Amino acid sequence: MHVSAYAAQSATTPLVPFTAARREPRPDDVTIDIAYCGVCHSDLHQARNDWGNSKFPMVPGHEIIGRVTAVGTAVTRFAVGDQVGVGCMVDSCQQCASCSRGLEQYCEKGSTLTYNGVDRRDGLPTFGGYSERIVVNDKFVVKIPDGLDLAGAAPLLCAGITTWSPLRQWNIGHGNKVAVVGLGGLGHMALKLARALGAEVTLFTRSPDKEADARALGAHHVVLSTDSAQMKASARQFDLIIDTVPYAHDLNPYLPTLALDGTIVLVGYLGPLNPPVNSMLLIGGRKSVAGSAIGGIAETQEMLDFCGEHGITSDIEVIRMQDINAAYERMLKSDVKYRFVIDLASLRA
Amino acid sequence: MHVSAYAAQSATTPLVPFTAARREPRPDDVTIDIAYCGVCHSDLHQARNDWGNSKFPMVPGHEIIGRVTAVGTAVTRFAVGDQVGVGCMVDSCQQCASCSRGLEQYCEKGSTLTYNGVDRRDGLPTFGGYSERIVVNDKFVVKIPDGLDLAGAAPLLCAGITTWSPLRQWNIGHGNKVAVVGLGGLGHMALKLARALGAEVTLFTRSPDKEADARALGAHHVVLSTDSAQMKASARQFDLIIDTVPYAHDLNPYLPTLALDGTIVLVGYLGPLNPPVNSMLLIGGRKSVAGSAIGGIAETQEMLDFCGEHGITSDIEVIRMQDINAAYERMLKSDVKYRFVIDLASLRA
Repeated sequence: MHVSAYAAQSATTPLVPFTAARREPRPDDVTIDIAYCGVCHSDLHQARNDWGNSKFPMVPGHEIIGRVTAVGTAVTRFAVGDQVGVGCMVDSCQQCASCSRGLEQYCEKGSTLTYNGVDRRDGLPTFGGYSERIVVNDKFVVKIPDGLDLAGAAPLLCAGITTWSPLRQWNIGHGNKVAVVGLGGLGHMALKLARALGAEVTLFTRSPDKEADARALGAHHVVLSTDSAQMKASARQFDLIIDTVPYAHDLNPYLPTLALDGTIVLVGYLGPLNPPVNSMLLIGGRKSVAGSAIGGIAETQEMLDFCGEHGITSDIEVIRMQDINAAYERMLKSDVKYRFVIDLASLRA
Repeated sequence: MHVSAYAAQSATTPLVPFTAARREPRPDDVTIDIAYCGVCHSDLHQARNDWGNSKFPMVPGHEIIGRVTAVGTAVTRFAVGDQVGVGCMVDSCQQCASCSRGLEQYCEKGSTLTYNGVDRRDGLPTFGGYSERIVVNDKFVVKIPDGLDLAGAAPLLCAGITTWSPLRQWNIGHGNKVAVVGLGGLGHMALKLARALGAEVTLFTRSPDKEADARALGAHHVVLSTDSAQMKASARQFDLIIDTVPYAHDLNPYLPTLALDGTIVLVGYLGPLNPPVNSMLLIGGRKSVAGSAIGGIAETQEMLDFCGEHGITSDIEVIRMQDINAAYERMLKSDVKYRFVIDLASLRA
């Protein structure tokens, strides 16, 4: 099967039109006409080989929303016409301890990524959602609740689940205080989801001009992290801090704002914690620095159902596929509120 | 009240005989004739002002075992003749959220340290267990179970509780795998306590010659952390790693040995985590780096009772008070199995 797409042909060239070869559907596959695909910061990282493991040509995109156009004979959970989603993974070993717990993102054999991965059955490269159609194992397809705006729902598949999973893992609800560091694609979802779960929510930001937006998105409080008096007044407040910042930054100023037994969980940055964390700030108050990766398929569905009940979607700016390179440049300047979403109709036009 | 003691008069001079002024006992005070006092690595750190907050003259010592010689009129839990212990704290605010949970070591106002502290009622310096007698608020005195060797029990008051508290906080018992980094005063207690709690216990060490000792102390397995094949074979094993190393060291090699949702808890080192922890190793497997400080008074008593039931004490070398400076030099070379304990009879002779 050949489908229209956009691909990076190298780490240093813009994305260009590309015809992607996809497998013929297997009995357990769902074929999806893609309506929308969110643009995640990691698309940019991987298209530019920032993590050193990129394979080209690469069709990015792992916040995929579409409609089922065909199902294999072994597929029972989906039917033609269903509105569905695909996130960061399209397969896993489905046998290890992690997969057995429904935490496929921590598959001990490594989950199969939606793009820049290798299919574990046929060994072919995986291509993501910057394309008109995708073929996915039914276990890695989720249902999109009726009533949600489909374009706005696309970022739930990565930005949504990446912030939902730690909120659930650390049992956040009424009576908890949660802070979010960084107001981007992940951060704005963290505010919405933490608020909807009943927590008292604070945004840490370095930009005073983000306050109004943050409050509109769900923050009860906004703390200017560059203001030492405000930081000091936040001492021992938070059960959980979700740190969405995608580059190296100093965690130490945030640690005193954690409550006893509090955790700062990193969801946005992969690399050395430099400047180094001071263990004195962990030992005083039995605090933790943790990491969390996206979420399992079952909890992705749980998150989508929750968003359906609460009418939660991402705040987005819809773009044409042809505008992707300009969108990347704007992302680098954080010039997006809060997620670009590609309307794949533009690719078919 | 004036008592014989040994004190550091400065950060650069050896400990010398000293007469310490202690307060006249208050109604809620217990007066204790000290029989034994363990020698903790932090005694050395503070005597030499390694943490920059030392006040001189300083009488170190916070692993105190003795016998009650007097009780104030408000004391109900202790009587003359009881064998009792005092650990790292002698008071706290007793009103904050931490104290209310019995976690006085995390007192929001700061607990009063047994030495190098300031009494919160009279403002006088606190002096520790390198002395013949101590006067302590009854809430910070614990009972030593009958049948335990008193000299061997002394290190339970710091080395014991410091490793017990994280084992309990992370719910370690049968079915769990625990690893310990470093085989010193803390490490050897961590092996004994984790084993007695029912866990499968591994020691990480850089010294192949520690294997026999480690197994005798309770380790089921010994992994040479300098052997990459052994480290690789330990991947995804441990629910909890207790890291007792008292200086900066690289945590990254240990993180892949944590199981999904595993935690490495630092109990020995206060300072920057250099080289920096790589967040990729935390995010892959939802792992945590945490810190833990000693333990609360209630859990110290719980630990002592557990040790009484299981006949657990520290492996020690008893020294005379007069030998403390030589003992410090040997500690610096890790030449002790596994804790020096001062017999305070030497001070009275």
